[in-house]
Amino acid sequence: MPDVPESHPRKDSLSARQKIVDGAKRGLLADSAMIAHGRGEAFDYLLGEKTTESATMAIRRVATLLTSAERPVISTNGNTAVLAGESMIRVAAVVGCPIEVNLYYRTPERMSGLLSLLGEQRDSVAKEKGPSQFKGDWGEAVRSVRILGDEADFRIEGLEGPRALCTEDGIGLADLILVPLEDGDRCEALISLGKLVCVIDLNPLSRTARMASVTIVDEVSRAAISLLSEVLNPTEVEGEWDNDAALRDSLKHISNAIDRL
Amino acid sequence: MPDVPESHPRKDSLSARQKIVDGAKRGLLADSAMIAHGRGEAFDYLLGEKTTESATMAIRRVATLLTSAERPVISTNGNTAVLAGESMIRVAAVVGCPIEVNLYYRTPERMSGLLSLLGEQRDSVAKEKGPSQFKGDWGEAVRSVRILGDEADFRIEGLEGPRALCTEDGIGLADLILVPLEDGDRCEALISLGKLVCVIDLNPLSRTARMASVTIVDEVSRAAISLLSEVLNPTEVEGEWDNDAALRDSLKHISNAIDRL
Repeated sequence: MPDVPESHPRKDSLSARQKIVDGAKRGLLADSAMIAHGRGEAFDYLLGEKTTESATMAIRRVATLLTSAERPVISTNGNTAVLAGESMIRVAAVVGCPIEVNLYYRTPERMSGLLSLLGEQRDSVAKEKGPSQFKGDWGEAVRSVRILGDEADFRIEGLEGPRALCTEDGIGLADLILVPLEDGDRCEALISLGKLVCVIDLNPLSRTARMASVTIVDEVSRAAISLLSEVLNPTEVEGEWDNDAALRDSLKHISNAIDRL
Repeated sequence: MPDVPESHPRKDSLSARQKIVDGAKRGLLADSAMIAHGRGEAFDYLLGEKTTESATMAIRRVATLLTSAERPVISTNGNTAVLAGESMIRVAAVVGCPIEVNLYYRTPERMSGLLSLLGEQRDSVAKEKGPSQFKGDWGEAVRSVRILGDEADFRIEGLEGPRALCTEDGIGLADLILVPLEDGDRCEALISLGKLVCVIDLNPLSRTARMASVTIVDEVSRAAISLLSEVLNPTEVEGEWDNDAALRDSLKHISNAIDRL
């Protein structure tokens, strides 16, 4: 695909698409990862490629949960690492939690490719000046983000085959998992284990979106940037989180957008 | 991806996805073809993975136009050939028109791969018994469907680079082009040349959908099967075709589906 001019109204979407195409060429993504990305593109298009107010509320809630959890972990798959790996490392540095590479279609090649990619991203983020609101040594905080996933020494109960594998130190013992772009079955299994599962999913109708403790209906790289601001300055949030209400709000947003056309 | 059981409610969608993944592995598809397929999946999901009434009307209109055109041609890209190549050959056999492989991202490898694939599909369709309503020798009708695209001896005015290339005998001199899954720029250029352009596009908001003479908002393999029935028994259709009204109807369908959830 040719370079997209800075002024293009859909520049972000087109450059995300290019990252996915490049990631697939480098063998980092599952066969159907590009198809999943395309589905996301369509929903994002219907959402106006903007973070809605209910998504902002969900991001705020996830930030509060992440910063108050005992053992939080951020689980990333290929698409997340390619689209938002650096942002997720920044979030992990602020929260002080590990990142676990966890794949639905797990192969040794993709695992090692993604572990390397995240390692490179961590090196690059460690060299940044860091967010102005961050107190402490940014480089040290970033370098101390552990990148897990290599050693699959734990199985998620209720799942079969390679998709059940994870690390004990990460997802295995976590009380909260932020898992963008998760599969429905896995989301359900993690919830059944009593964990808080926060997801980022552009399809408010997906099983993942409906199963999760908190669903951020937003594009993963946009959501990750907002999430960084929020974890730097987490706010007290009152009351229970009504995830169904947030999903209904996203659907209403899509339906209104269509009606306006 | 594992085999999908016959009883799976979304079997058609999942088997289409598998065909696209296989086609990509065989090098038949452009880099972003899987992403485009994913976008289509999302819209089809919102349409309930069914042919709407306005899509049926559009298919009927296209059948009438195809059977009454002077020089119709069916233009196929990689996704169309992989998902609906055999159906399109059946339609071409009934209509008596050529099929042209025409790619937005044209490479010699993909051209020859798709020309071979369509040749194999034609051989296989020629061996079928043929539709009961078809009068004549089915095998002969199928074998006489010309598969064009190899010789790019014509340029579509208003386009630059390889995407302007086509064959004179096909798109070049055609008065009507049925082009599923077309790019917006190319659709516009073909319309500017005074041709009737009929498209199949799951996104009723796409520039292609809005530019075309007749837009079938439906999944390409489902639409191709209905189109075959219609060209076997084309009906007289009265009055002008209001494409905007058909697109609005599709949007309403999506919006109602969302509101019901």
